[in-house]
Amino acid sequence: MIVAMMESATEEQIQQVIERMVELGFDVHRTTGAIQTVLAGVGKPAQFEVQEFQVLAGVAEAYRISSPYKLAGRGFRPEGTVVRFPNGVTVGGEEVVVMAGPCSVESREQILLSAQQVAAGGAKFLRGGAFKPRSSPYSFQGMGLEGLKLLREVGDSTGLLIISEVMEISQIELMMPYVDVFQVGARNMQNFNLLRELGHVRKPVLLKRGIAATIEELLLSAEYILAGGNYDLILCERGIRTFETYTRNTMDISAIPVLKKLTHLPVLGDPSHGVGRRDMVPAMAMAAVAAGADGLLMEMHPNPDKAMSDGAQSLFPEQYEKLMDNLRALAPVVGRSVAKPAYAI
Amino acid sequence: MIVAMMESATEEQIQQVIERMVELGFDVHRTTGAIQTVLAGVGKPAQFEVQEFQVLAGVAEAYRISSPYKLAGRGFRPEGTVVRFPNGVTVGGEEVVVMAGPCSVESREQILLSAQQVAAGGAKFLRGGAFKPRSSPYSFQGMGLEGLKLLREVGDSTGLLIISEVMEISQIELMMPYVDVFQVGARNMQNFNLLRELGHVRKPVLLKRGIAATIEELLLSAEYILAGGNYDLILCERGIRTFETYTRNTMDISAIPVLKKLTHLPVLGDPSHGVGRRDMVPAMAMAAVAAGADGLLMEMHPNPDKAMSDGAQSLFPEQYEKLMDNLRALAPVVGRSVAKPAYAI
Amino acid sequence: MIVAMMESATEEQIQQVIERMVELGFDVHRTTGAIQTVLAGVGKPAQFEVQEFQVLAGVAEAYRISSPYKLAGRGFRPEGTVVRFPNGVTVGGEEVVVMAGPCSVESREQILLSAQQVAAGGAKFLRGGAFKPRSSPYSFQGMGLEGLKLLREVGDSTGLLIISEVMEISQIELMMPYVDVFQVGARNMQNFNLLRELGHVRKPVLLKRGIAATIEELLLSAEYILAGGNYDLILCERGIRTFETYTRNTMDISAIPVLKKLTHLPVLGDPSHGVGRRDMVPAMAMAAVAAGADGLLMEMHPNPDKAMSDGAQSLFPEQYEKLMDNLRALAPVVGRSVAKPAYAI
Amino acid sequence: MIVAMMESATEEQIQQVIERMVELGFDVHRTTGAIQTVLAGVGKPAQFEVQEFQVLAGVAEAYRISSPYKLAGRGFRPEGTVVRFPNGVTVGGEEVVVMAGPCSVESREQILLSAQQVAAGGAKFLRGGAFKPRSSPYSFQGMGLEGLKLLREVGDSTGLLIISEVMEISQIELMMPYVDVFQVGARNMQNFNLLRELGHVRKPVLLKRGIAATIEELLLSAEYILAGGNYDLILCERGIRTFETYTRNTMDISAIPVLKKLTHLPVLGDPSHGVGRRDMVPAMAMAAVAAGADGLLMEMHPNPDKAMSDGAQSLFPEQYEKLMDNLRALAPVVGRSVAKPAYAI
Repeated sequence: MIVAMMESATEEQIQQVIERMVELGFDVHRTTGAIQTVLAGVGKPAQFEVQEFQVLAGVAEAYRISSPYKLAGRGFRPEGTVVRFPNGVTVGGEEVVVMAGPCSVESREQILLSAQQVAAGGAKFLRGGAFKPRSSPYSFQGMGLEGLKLLREVGDSTGLLIISEVMEISQIELMMPYVDVFQVGARNMQNFNLLRELGHVRKPVLLKRGIAATIEELLLSAEYILAGGNYDLILCERGIRTFETYTRNTMDISAIPVLKKLTHLPVLGDPSHGVGRRDMVPAMAMAAVAAGADGLLMEMHPNPDKAMSDGAQSLFPEQYEKLMDNLRALAPVVGRSVAKPAYAI
Repeated sequence: MIVAMMESATEEQIQQVIERMVELGFDVHRTTGAIQTVLAGVGKPAQFEVQEFQVLAGVAEAYRISSPYKLAGRGFRPEGTVVRFPNGVTVGGEEVVVMAGPCSVESREQILLSAQQVAAGGAKFLRGGAFKPRSSPYSFQGMGLEGLKLLREVGDSTGLLIISEVMEISQIELMMPYVDVFQVGARNMQNFNLLRELGHVRKPVLLKRGIAATIEELLLSAEYILAGGNYDLILCERGIRTFETYTRNTMDISAIPVLKKLTHLPVLGDPSHGVGRRDMVPAMAMAAVAAGADGLLMEMHPNPDKAMSDGAQSLFPEQYEKLMDNLRALAPVVGRSVAKPAYAI
Repeated sequence: MIVAMMESATEEQIQQVIERMVELGFDVHRTTGAIQTVLAGVGKPAQFEVQEFQVLAGVAEAYRISSPYKLAGRGFRPEGTVVRFPNGVTVGGEEVVVMAGPCSVESREQILLSAQQVAAGGAKFLRGGAFKPRSSPYSFQGMGLEGLKLLREVGDSTGLLIISEVMEISQIELMMPYVDVFQVGARNMQNFNLLRELGHVRKPVLLKRGIAATIEELLLSAEYILAGGNYDLILCERGIRTFETYTRNTMDISAIPVLKKLTHLPVLGDPSHGVGRRDMVPAMAMAAVAAGADGLLMEMHPNPDKAMSDGAQSLFPEQYEKLMDNLRALAPVVGRSVAKPAYAI
Repeated sequence: MIVAMMESATEEQIQQVIERMVELGFDVHRTTGAIQTVLAGVGKPAQFEVQEFQVLAGVAEAYRISSPYKLAGRGFRPEGTVVRFPNGVTVGGEEVVVMAGPCSVESREQILLSAQQVAAGGAKFLRGGAFKPRSSPYSFQGMGLEGLKLLREVGDSTGLLIISEVMEISQIELMMPYVDVFQVGARNMQNFNLLRELGHVRKPVLLKRGIAATIEELLLSAEYILAGGNYDLILCERGIRTFETYTRNTMDISAIPVLKKLTHLPVLGDPSHGVGRRDMVPAMAMAAVAAGADGLLMEMHPNPDKAMSDGAQSLFPEQYEKLMDNLRALAPVVGRSVAKPAYAI
């Protein structure tokens, strides 16, 4: 930690700051300039709050200089993490993986047709919500356990891995037999109790960035899961909240290369939530891959205009199919690949 | 709902939109202008997503015109809600109530001294965290049940009501004997399962606005609790995230009069989290009350420089005492009052 | 400046950073910790960009520790600046001054009636735009010179000082005979050529914060004017852009106490632009004064529903009158005063 | 325009709204539902402010349904605008054009070397600032006229077109002989007097989006230039201000496809200002082109570590060269091309 004292700071104030730094476990190196004094705290105390120093008397500025996360940092695994699934699919390797499907599971017919279309296009994962976090209590809240069973059934029949959102601790055990990846939604990125529990689970987790979360906060939330021993973790940028209203969110494409630099974890992009309008999803999917994403999470629905949730941002099947073709053309430009279409429907 | 068609929209596109509106349960009134056609959907279908219409072919704009919340709306209880406690204290009445105390319960000595100082100043509630949501897994996470017991003990001895944060469903039952108000923190404002459970609880709830939540979203989250039958609900503005970095958050003072207009629920301001720096807390506390807040939630610590969390935004006891005096002078200007100091320590 | 090197930084990288710091004119103090090396640059080079260091090889973080502005800093004039006008009115002194009037000058009748109402309520300045910055080229652009003449005329007849917005350099000379304060609007806060010219003017300037400007950037823009020798400068918070759409902007009330701490310049609040809705203006005006504002800039129109611009945020005359009464009651609570009503209309 | 009345609106309030709509020139169609009344205003009055209606008594919501810009709208020129230069270069056609060069012109040697490297890589335009808008008055402000002459000289010798920023009206005439494109920077996007003058200029203009400007505001600013008769206009996304601090700005890649839908004007991306860190520029340049950008504006410096401004976001020559190669591989995937390297240095 660095503390820069005000020009007007008294020696007594400087001594109080030094005392507090020592108390926290820092070795303090003092630089006394003609204008101001700077205190460098060396060492890594178990915990401290840099804000505490910003309001001490005589302090001009205080900065944390070591990153507050450890296991999530690139340096922990410079070669990068590859999450491996029993069927051989990997996330974080050479292949750009696609996870697609409807916002919600609505019926056997809907999810089966979705799965067939998703698999046909070359995606490896079927997404679909069984428990839905909805802003309004009057909106459709998902099919629950019944939805999970349907996901597993159609996943097995089409060879797709299943990813679905977990909203609270009690759902973990319930979901365990049915999903291959636990998705933590943006609204739960700082539901620390849930994260801690997922750290003890022996299945991969996909953690989405909150709409107002900094990149550092995303990595600190990742740290909760890693600290529990679960290293099969995938991150996902899905749009942040800004003043712009034309799009539902502003997809922060730059978070993708930034995360690739700061952490060893695989990074996906979710253009559906990123912009919230299906007419912009293909362009943003292409942008995400061009910027280095390890994969995409996208909403596709056999009949988006009749979807029970998020229809506006779900691709039509033919849009999805065309986008997958374009992604297959794009991936080699950035040294990657996208899987071939599995079979015609 | 209103759908404005593009100038270039075809009759077929218009018919498709009308068909979908009818399907959702709207009566449709059509206005065919020289330039563009406008469709007004009258009636209130159980649920629909206005975004769905924004991407339909030929649509220029689509707007929801009825508010998506019902029980939280001012019209539901025009006279305003007053939350009443067994000891006669009310929130939402004439008195501006103050809830103060440390961020976390740290020890019996610390919380007892806090309670004495808090009560002496004229506050009616003691705040203190037993379960702490922390960005980093390496930070102090609270004393848990032990902390709750200490809160109850010192609350009883000083005559203060107790407010403490609940982070997940399983804590509700645990906390029930010890707290008078369940606080839902900003990070859990859209933890819908938790909100739903709190709707079935027979104790008041204080719901904080999320750092990236619109006022409408806050009211929708309130609706989750109200819909369960719990009408003893208090809202709290505590700062939103913006580009400004000098303050920890930007306290949206205007949310206070806006909420007072839109909802019947009492509205508090939390200047400690609102700005995150104790030197700015008194000015913001005054501003909140001048703008019509029904109360304040503030952090005060007997020794902020040694606090285990949020020390930077906790008031010194003497600052708190002086602020309470200033609030007592201010309240009558806006037709309110603040309780007199209870006793000298 | 402080540069914290990465744990993995090589000695060669450290030497390159030191070399660049020396080249810019810093004395460099090196702290070699067990984990990472920290370099403190002491001294104040004429100019440097801290960002440059953030991307040098081996650098973890780089921070500027001295404030980039000098003349605007509180330390330059700890006692605070009081801007004095020939008629004895002061801004920044004990009195909370009010500047009120319509968005635009529309006609002699409108501006005369406005002035009479403004003066009657106790304001000391009449505001009114002659040159209007409008988002759309098709909106009313102001009366220009004719509007300035009307402002002067009614200002003289009612004893009010005149404040009006200057949009470009060529207008300075034109406006000189007619205004008492040059207002720089939010959109021009970083029109540096204009600021530089206003530094050479011998009349007070009111500088508004841009909707996306940090407090530091506002002070840097102030520095442009001060550096030219014009110390009669007043700052004004008028709302920043956030994700919230209920209000036109989010008025950052906390900017008022923050600026009072960081700079010696007087600070006003503009609740009209701050929230953009007249129903919220009184509450925000009260909040601004409670938080320490030296004055208010507000829109009032004799007939807001017929205003040619900004009608939605202009107070009705009776609202203004009542607000002035409330401000007179509030000011003493914060050790200030608001002038009595001048005369009945 | 649409006005939705509150459920509680009285007939008198409804009549007042209708009266005001008629006064502005609307034909009003009334829909009286069981719950609320909706008023549709048909026709396009010369100007009106929708906000005015939002605060009228009895009004729940008011929406503008026609876009406030006309000439900038896609419908005005569905085929798209192609800006053509005398040497045959086009912007908005099949080719993705690149504009590159240093932030500022610093010396003949620096700008000549820059031009040679820029041309060698395949860019068609040399960028370089002669007049620099700097946040601090103490920063390097540019070489002025001398810089313009150098730009022209090296542009002619290398066959590059010249783009440079204009900051105020008086510079237009001065710059005319030296530049091929007038660049309007983000800080001047709403300097309406400057925009109006550029509408009368017979040279292309590149208009950058302001850091807090919505897409609609960008198009309204474009309208100022188009309304003056200058149709050779290019737009540029260069990052918006958000809460994220790791990057200097958040580059809104989605603005590119959104603008391509809403307007006929060519759209460029500026990844240098978009993220402000050279290590992220290549990824964002790729993303912009993948998302449909018509070109890129990028900073490159022969020796970024010694640059007098913006060194942190300027590419090294070898980075630029490699990026151009990657862009050449990427462009065909989206049906475009990037020019071949001109010659080896």
